[in-house]
Amino acid sequence: MYKLAVGIFLAFATGSAALAGEGMWTPDNLPTAQLQAKYGFTPTAEWTAHAQHAALRLAGGCSGSFVSPKGLVLTNHHCVNSCVQQLSTADRDFIKSGFLAREEKDEIKCPEIELNRLDTITDVTARVKKATAGRSGQAFSKADKAIKSEIEKECVAQDSAGTRCDVVDLYHGGVYALYKYHRYQDVRLVFAPEFEMAFFGGDPDNFNFPRYDLDVGMLRAWENDKPAVVADYFPFSKDGAAEGEMVVTIGNPGGTDRQLTIAELESARDLDLVPRLFLLAEQRGLITQFRSESPEHWRIGQHDLFSVENAFKALRGRLLALQDPAVFALKRKQEAELRAFVDADPARKAKYGGAWEAIAGAMDAYRSIATRYKYLEARRGFFSEYYAHARTLVRGTLERGKPNAERLREYTDSKLPSVTQHLLSSAPVYPDYEQVTLGWSLAKLREALGTDDALVRKILGNEAPDAVARRLVAGTRLGDPAVRKALWDGGAEAVAKSDDPFIVLARTVDPEARAIRARYENDVEAVVDKNSELIAGARFEKYGASVYPDATFTQRFSFGEVRGWDENGTAVPPFTDIAGTFAHATGSYPFALPASWLAAKDRLDLRKRMNLVTTNDIIGGNSGSPLVNARGEIVGLVFDGNIHSLGGNYWYDERLNRTVSVHSSAILEALGKVYGAERLVRELESARY
Amino acid sequence: MYKLAVGIFLAFATGSAALAGEGMWTPDNLPTAQLQAKYGFTPTAEWTAHAQHAALRLAGGCSGSFVSPKGLVLTNHHCVNSCVQQLSTADRDFIKSGFLAREEKDEIKCPEIELNRLDTITDVTARVKKATAGRSGQAFSKADKAIKSEIEKECVAQDSAGTRCDVVDLYHGGVYALYKYHRYQDVRLVFAPEFEMAFFGGDPDNFNFPRYDLDVGMLRAWENDKPAVVADYFPFSKDGAAEGEMVVTIGNPGGTDRQLTIAELESARDLDLVPRLFLLAEQRGLITQFRSESPEHWRIGQHDLFSVENAFKALRGRLLALQDPAVFALKRKQEAELRAFVDADPARKAKYGGAWEAIAGAMDAYRSIATRYKYLEARRGFFSEYYAHARTLVRGTLERGKPNAERLREYTDSKLPSVTQHLLSSAPVYPDYEQVTLGWSLAKLREALGTDDALVRKILGNEAPDAVARRLVAGTRLGDPAVRKALWDGGAEAVAKSDDPFIVLARTVDPEARAIRARYENDVEAVVDKNSELIAGARFEKYGASVYPDATFTQRFSFGEVRGWDENGTAVPPFTDIAGTFAHATGSYPFALPASWLAAKDRLDLRKRMNLVTTNDIIGGNSGSPLVNARGEIVGLVFDGNIHSLGGNYWYDERLNRTVSVHSSAILEALGKVYGAERLVRELESARY
Repeated sequence: MYKLAVGIFLAFATGSAALAGEGMWTPDNLPTAQLQAKYGFTPTAEWTAHAQHAALRLAGGCSGSFVSPKGLVLTNHHCVNSCVQQLSTADRDFIKSGFLAREEKDEIKCPEIELNRLDTITDVTARVKKATAGRSGQAFSKADKAIKSEIEKECVAQDSAGTRCDVVDLYHGGVYALYKYHRYQDVRLVFAPEFEMAFFGGDPDNFNFPRYDLDVGMLRAWENDKPAVVADYFPFSKDGAAEGEMVVTIGNPGGTDRQLTIAELESARDLDLVPRLFLLAEQRGLITQFRSESPEHWRIGQHDLFSVENAFKALRGRLLALQDPAVFALKRKQEAELRAFVDADPARKAKYGGAWEAIAGAMDAYRSIATRYKYLEARRGFFSEYYAHARTLVRGTLERGKPNAERLREYTDSKLPSVTQHLLSSAPVYPDYEQVTLGWSLAKLREALGTDDALVRKILGNEAPDAVARRLVAGTRLGDPAVRKALWDGGAEAVAKSDDPFIVLARTVDPEARAIRARYENDVEAVVDKNSELIAGARFEKYGASVYPDATFTQRFSFGEVRGWDENGTAVPPFTDIAGTFAHATGSYPFALPASWLAAKDRLDLRKRMNLVTTNDIIGGNSGSPLVNARGEIVGLVFDGNIHSLGGNYWYDERLNRTVSVHSSAILEALGKVYGAERLVRELESARY
Repeated sequence: MYKLAVGIFLAFATGSAALAGEGMWTPDNLPTAQLQAKYGFTPTAEWTAHAQHAALRLAGGCSGSFVSPKGLVLTNHHCVNSCVQQLSTADRDFIKSGFLAREEKDEIKCPEIELNRLDTITDVTARVKKATAGRSGQAFSKADKAIKSEIEKECVAQDSAGTRCDVVDLYHGGVYALYKYHRYQDVRLVFAPEFEMAFFGGDPDNFNFPRYDLDVGMLRAWENDKPAVVADYFPFSKDGAAEGEMVVTIGNPGGTDRQLTIAELESARDLDLVPRLFLLAEQRGLITQFRSESPEHWRIGQHDLFSVENAFKALRGRLLALQDPAVFALKRKQEAELRAFVDADPARKAKYGGAWEAIAGAMDAYRSIATRYKYLEARRGFFSEYYAHARTLVRGTLERGKPNAERLREYTDSKLPSVTQHLLSSAPVYPDYEQVTLGWSLAKLREALGTDDALVRKILGNEAPDAVARRLVAGTRLGDPAVRKALWDGGAEAVAKSDDPFIVLARTVDPEARAIRARYENDVEAVVDKNSELIAGARFEKYGASVYPDATFTQRFSFGEVRGWDENGTAVPPFTDIAGTFAHATGSYPFALPASWLAAKDRLDLRKRMNLVTTNDIIGGNSGSPLVNARGEIVGLVFDGNIHSLGGNYWYDERLNRTVSVHSSAILEALGKVYGAERLVRELESARY
């Protein structure tokens, strides 16, 4: 599955410009020469700016795009799933029934969705590097955070509600860029199909192809209680793309690790992936059984199980890549070549030569703190929404009292609107479920840190983990957003006085969590950041700007084409059709079609295309990305990658790595003939550019 | 944790005789010269024969020993746990309350426990090698199985009920030995403490030390409805062993992989350990939640959860060793040295040189079939007792009809008594639980083999996995031992006619399971066996018989001493005491002491030793092994290893690897003062040799 052809070794090893679909390019550095050579296509500045502004980021971890001048947004069902679940109740389950706002007034606000439109990119490399020059360890970390917070604060200026600014590290510190976004927080749910249609084939088909999903969710950005008026949007193509046609994704790949050192890759495999996968697998079993207990438990556990299964499969795919000796061999070769280039020149050697050993040293430091860091600071030991809120209250109120530049980065002025959106959200918290997940994760905490750990003893006392969970869940009032709001408004003093058991727990954990975070930031992150910058410098000297940076959950363009692949000698064609959807329906979950589709079968044009695969280079975070043709028309909606795309975290395998999208025709066909969403069809079809 | 000191590299790399506790020695090849040099102790032939016959194997996967002339057996609670659970009901839960037979007549038969006493060992290398000479692939596999079955059948002769014979591969085919056992199938439960005492500290403390467990179970071998009269048994020591004193374990380590090639180690890590651990983790979550649903579910799931958590921790420890680059570096060095030795001589090269590549080729073959093999043949897709019985019925009745030498090895005449003991056992099967575990594992089957796999489609049809499980569990009659007996007695014809849904399922799966097993045996196992023999030959030429064979769940002696270790700069002393047990009791599971102990506190001598660690080299299967002093007296009962012992599958780290035992004093103290088991105390104390 991950065997490497020689050709790929060479293309990759020379660090040369990518072939075929490889590359997640920033809007300000598209590979124009390659595009002209390969597709006879040169994106004009206008084309690029338009695409940049029509595409969107969902702050929670997805992508999307405007598809009408009235702020209509196209994204995936799995990107709006949490909203659909939050708006559901035991009596009115939109996960099951789907959701359609027949009229504008029926559109309902999603409690926690924030949209970001990327307005400008400004290079701030010189300013950041000046601030950190000559520093290392804690001093580096502090200066780095301070300058970034300062730049972001200036950028946000007076409009923190409507503007979001992030300083982004590109090329692992080779470039620092200020990304300025327009922020939409009044985002309303417009359409979601039934979960069983959005995720037809379920976990068994996830990351597989052929597929037959309608993984579509539609939102609308509102401003001042009216649909937002937007200048840039992507109209729908009439027929979609043909086999072999060039297609572009514009989205926000969350992160890739294509430029990591060998030491970092080993650490990713052994310290990050494997322990995380063990935890996910156990969580999966737990939630699976919880869901089987009653229809209400089934509903409550839906979103988490989806997330857990999806993460498990995705990370397992990554692990498979790192278990492939050929991938490590490739990486070792690349690293050796770059190091040889550095060592060949005394000045370069003096400047960059120590970077790899320094990073290996940071990984040793990480090895000794990784478990504690993950369990306390990354909250692995506290799998609970109540706890998440409690920590925000304990930390956020303390941090707010500090100067902006000295705060933990997630509580800077630029970030507070997202923090409060989640904290004050009306999304329900389910006590039954909390008790199960908290009890379980406290048991994992004890397992990870040991029975005799002082903090574990403080948290558990003489009680069993599930007894502690039961007591805390029974005693808390944090399920009520008004209670959270009162504490947030009351500030650090109110929080310090609170005897809510989750606040008490968060107060107990916080000092130790901060301490381990500081060790992580100073002994690991700062060392990695500083030395990755050096390696990035060496790489620039050798390869110039012909390469793209690792993904950073910021906007990237990827140029590919509609193309199937060869799976162990069997050709996988690039398209599926609606007929195939019916052919795969067994009637049993997750292969059951909803009643709406069964009833609409005779009305549907079964020959229309359902899903397609393309060679675009994407990764988690790209979900919901528009797939557009050279004219900037929607020909598809990215919702997945094939199984081979999962190793894409570490390298791009052009023979096998494929993006999976819902075909534009399927979206129009379904909206019109299955869901009776004439209002939306009219809006989409009239949205010509 | 697994960092290697140079001294260890050297000791290991030269393949020289083991230092300190290293070595799992067969009774016919004890390291007498080393023992004399190190401990001034030379085991006489009489000493060894006595120990060999006093020690026992529990066929289900444990060790034990006779401790009185009336067939009283000492082993672990976790080795008799399944019996304790099988004898329990919703009203009478011996897991919770413990069990004590006040009088001989109160001893209850365990439905599935078989004891094996090793009577003789005969070298049959020449005969086996002659039969397989010049063959490879399927022909090798067939000849190998045939000769082994033939030898075993001759050995069992007329007494298949009372005799068990196994041809054992030692040194990976360097030596074949016929192990002849006396078989006890009437084994009765005599004593088991409360589970919470046997497993005090639970999973958090498992594989850890300091420990405070009374992991003790006592059985009695009966023959002709009377306690068996045995000539060899170990009396209890009066005071136990002192720090630094030589102590011996005699037990049945299940398997080690210390002589695997690099290709096999990589395959073990990526194809065996990691996927198995993912499955165990998920199973753990599932059963954890199942148990939380009601007291009865809590009881039903107890044994499986224990097994799953124990396996998870043990295998995770192995994985940690294989994730340590230093361990692989050591193994590469050893392999390179042996290959250099082979290559240095043209004749040796011609004879042995191709073995490593051949094994690597077999691992490639394994990679392509491993998943299917595990899910179908190793039953990973059918986690169900009903299914286990159904398969035994389908396969066993077919196999019985074939000549002995042509059968699948687990159905040869020599093995049938164990097969029928399990098949006809009165142990209850729990439909609720079966439905959960079968439904879950069928979903895993679909995930592993793919939705479009023809067999998956045949099994699931248009139903969801849990619906299939519900239907099968509701429809089966295999929970009744009488129904199973009727089918077994009715033979292949009766089974072929049965419409029991589990029999139907087993019939559906069997041809494909057999096919993938044949591929595994011919393309992987036979190649590995044949070429491991070659490597073993090369190793003999280089190192002679100064080394011990990998463990094979046959009797081994390990010589070590009472000694603590240094854990990251902190000295861990070798003993804990009864006072520590009370000091660690929080009152909450798994740190709750049973009422019996709380009530007995004032009567107990709190200074008496509770558990201890020693340097003996053990592994899973050694559970229940006697720990004896030079005089052959019981000074402890092996029940665990420390966390560092888990890497012992691949190498022995003398600085850190420790065996954990219950101290002999704790056993006597508890029997007498906590449990009022005066009958047993008298029997133990009067059993002087």
